Amino acid sequence: MREVVLSTGDSLVLYDTSGPYTDPEVEIDVNRGLPAVRATWIDARADAETDQARGGVRRGARAPSRGALTQRAYARRGEITREMEFVGLREGLPAETVRAEIAAGRAVLPANVNHPESEPMAIGRAFLVKINANLGNSAVTSSMAEEVEKMVWATRWGADTVMDLSTGADIHRTREWILRNSPVPIGTVPIYEALEQVGGRPEELTWAAYRDAVIRQCEQGVDYMTVHAGVLARYIPLTTRRRTGIVSRGGAILATWCRAHGQENFLYTHFEDLCEILAAYDVTFSLGDGLRPGSVSDANDEAQLAELATLGELTRIAWRHDVQVMIEGPGHVPLHLVEENVRLQRELCHDAPFYTLGPLTTDIAPGYDHITSAIGAAVIGWHGTAMLCYVTPKEHLGLPNRDDVKAGVIAYKIAAHAADVAKGHPGAQAWDDALSDARFAFRWADQFHLALDPETARAYHDETLPAPAAKSAHFCSMCGPHFCSMRLSQQDPRPPAGP
Amino acid sequence: MREVVLSTGDSLVLYDTSGPYTDPEVEIDVNRGLPAVRATWIDARADAETDQARGGVRRGARAPSRGALTQRAYARRGEITREMEFVGLREGLPAETVRAEIAAGRAVLPANVNHPESEPMAIGRAFLVKINANLGNSAVTSSMAEEVEKMVWATRWGADTVMDLSTGADIHRTREWILRNSPVPIGTVPIYEALEQVGGRPEELTWAAYRDAVIRQCEQGVDYMTVHAGVLARYIPLTTRRRTGIVSRGGAILATWCRAHGQENFLYTHFEDLCEILAAYDVTFSLGDGLRPGSVSDANDEAQLAELATLGELTRIAWRHDVQVMIEGPGHVPLHLVEENVRLQRELCHDAPFYTLGPLTTDIAPGYDHITSAIGAAVIGWHGTAMLCYVTPKEHLGLPNRDDVKAGVIAYKIAAHAADVAKGHPGAQAWDDALSDARFAFRWADQFHLALDPETARAYHDETLPAPAAKSAHFCSMCGPHFCSMRLSQQDPRPPAGP
Repeated sequence: MREVVLSTGDSLVLYDTSGPYTDPEVEIDVNRGLPAVRATWIDARADAETDQARGGVRRGARAPSRGALTQRAYARRGEITREMEFVGLREGLPAETVRAEIAAGRAVLPANVNHPESEPMAIGRAFLVKINANLGNSAVTSSMAEEVEKMVWATRWGADTVMDLSTGADIHRTREWILRNSPVPIGTVPIYEALEQVGGRPEELTWAAYRDAVIRQCEQGVDYMTVHAGVLARYIPLTTRRRTGIVSRGGAILATWCRAHGQENFLYTHFEDLCEILAAYDVTFSLGDGLRPGSVSDANDEAQLAELATLGELTRIAWRHDVQVMIEGPGHVPLHLVEENVRLQRELCHDAPFYTLGPLTTDIAPGYDHITSAIGAAVIGWHGTAMLCYVTPKEHLGLPNRDDVKAGVIAYKIAAHAADVAKGHPGAQAWDDALSDARFAFRWADQFHLALDPETARAYHDETLPAPAAKSAHFCSMCGPHFCSMRLSQQDPRPPAGP
Repeated sequence: MREVVLSTGDSLVLYDTSGPYTDPEVEIDVNRGLPAVRATWIDARADAETDQARGGVRRGARAPSRGALTQRAYARRGEITREMEFVGLREGLPAETVRAEIAAGRAVLPANVNHPESEPMAIGRAFLVKINANLGNSAVTSSMAEEVEKMVWATRWGADTVMDLSTGADIHRTREWILRNSPVPIGTVPIYEALEQVGGRPEELTWAAYRDAVIRQCEQGVDYMTVHAGVLARYIPLTTRRRTGIVSRGGAILATWCRAHGQENFLYTHFEDLCEILAAYDVTFSLGDGLRPGSVSDANDEAQLAELATLGELTRIAWRHDVQVMIEGPGHVPLHLVEENVRLQRELCHDAPFYTLGPLTTDIAPGYDHITSAIGAAVIGWHGTAMLCYVTPKEHLGLPNRDDVKAGVIAYKIAAHAADVAKGHPGAQAWDDALSDARFAFRWADQFHLALDPETARAYHDETLPAPAAKSAHFCSMCGPHFCSMRLSQQDPRPPAGP
């Protein structure tokens, strides 16, 4: 959490995801990684086998006899873990609420036992709406060091989780750097690594290659994994009538495999095997929507909804194994169909948390899809979506750079907070109120400190009025001194004319 | 209108507000002004008195005996004007629909007889959602030439109307330049000019000073005017309980006057006089919401709604004079209260078109209020708001520059179009579909040409893949060649494995 001290002597505590990076008293060494804040908690539970041979830090899978070591399993047994306590403090909610939401499957707390550096957080409709930032190099561009820096940068502006979607060389090593330095949960799409292992040819994918990639990532500490197990062979023909076919990378890979082999998706047929692996490390399923619409024209169509029903079926299976589950959602959805997405997801997936990409509410603005999608994200968050996957201005055009990552995160923090205010989340509007109070009282410095992006707010103000005296002026350059409504409505010494 | 010719031989016609400025065959001379496209139509009606002494271009007020020369008066008499025909062609709707909507008061067609340079457009829920860009220097910064250039720039990106909110010196001369060069209707807030006339002291305002400013602007060609006639003396005390008091400049000026004199707002007491003046030039009322909320905390409060009811009363009075009316709305409104604003406005104001500023859905992001408000604007547009007044990134911080104007216009074009698609406006989604088709077929050049901002879309793509060959490549740098879902879902030569 971050405390903003105001010039009035008051202060406001804000939720903060940047971990030690914004603490001036902490020295950062990316080669050493962050302190393992959760290590003692995990060790104290004494249910994970540590692998001393690998340096004593990595925790392997539990012995099957001891039962699942997932937050869901603890929650269902009535145990409030230290992670749940931490979440309760961050969210301003009783720890028992955190436990109950996780036990009911309405929330997840993604926390691989092998990622002890992460600060616990929860994703669920009872909590603050979260946002995810996608990072990752592609074969065309970007280096490993850049990706690590982008992760720190994304959390600096408020990303609650980060997905590493690297597809080029060095997938494993890039991820290791990110994990050891990340204060937020890390998600991946393991089929990308599996595909690299088979030379990039989808037809040559096998369950064994996929399983090995998953286990490597579980051991490394990945907190949640996108698994496109709902892309069933019989749904694929439904996409041929679409305007934009299949636009999920994982969905397209699996559809290609299914077509090539004339067989059912191996992630569906091996889903119980996957559950056993993920349960052993407390890795959360993010059941991927491989058939999500890629244009407003394809929104809420048969392919999308057929897959959603299957994800609901898989949710129950994962829950039986005490694996935590969230459900991924679209994509491109016009405003009038947004609420229906949440309603259907809740019904079909038994209230498991919803995690949507946007949605983009129009297709006409490449270069501005952080805005086309922040509109949809705010509305879908208000209706109950638990996490919003950001979209950057480069969506559909290229790999985001540092500025694009910031633009995407800021747009999504706005969407998530607008949703929190609309949902009436306890305490959410206190931030708006504190900033509006500062604005009305012309406390410019307080206004900047409370702003979502203090640097930009100050820079925009100072562009026209850079003098220090302007920071106590009762106007800005927008209206000038004679036309400032707030100044006028406060200056008048006479009592109201009433009645 | 603008025709986008695609590489397939097809083309798409898009609504375009830039007038002659984007026509390569038209030579622009800002000293001469734009051609007076409506002059022959106005003259043919032979109901406006031209003032030859002033050069034969300006048209004065009609002789009272001839009745109102407003589009509303014609519409109510069953006449389809050339302006209505023009609007019907632009909107793809029958001219009779245009007439009927104007006659019923559900739409306005702001077209002062003294602004013959403007291309007719309509504001109403049956039409495409429109956007307004506010321009205008303040005492602190900006020159006249810059404001004219910003007007052209704003329409270049899609502003449907422009409000000149200048408050500094040279108000009259700046406006003259803007009007003679503007292809879109121009709105003003005449109380700013009246205030300048009385030395900037709200207490010294008089009805006579205000009336003279209004008449000067009517003669100059202003198409619509914000009039804060609903700020009644008895509503002002309601704002003292607020978090952010009065945030409308006009509202604050009039509240100061009411308090100083202990009298009722002179715009309210002289409203019928105003109607007679506006009717004579066909100037449209934009009934201002001087008591709009300036923070989400103040949204939909008693002060706001009391004023809205008075605006409804004034609407009926204006209609009796055959003056066209639209109603201004907030402001700062959290998402869950947005729809209620539209519902109440329709009820209380008899379905007159609603024209809102945003609304901003959260107060926490100064520097990004084009985004906090585009979210609210899209939702309120979907629910039936007819025009959205843009907000730039500089809102609350300073006067927008050229880049800020563009950022605001683009964000609002996105909001308006997302609303049009959600409303199912005939033809709106054809734009999305054309762009999605180009995207799916990797027709990069078509995708750029169809984009809301072709330059930015192309620049973002070219940042990583500048080579000409990349414009026909079946991938971009976001996913690289091996992971492009659209490529994968199209390349597979085998038939689907189904069922």
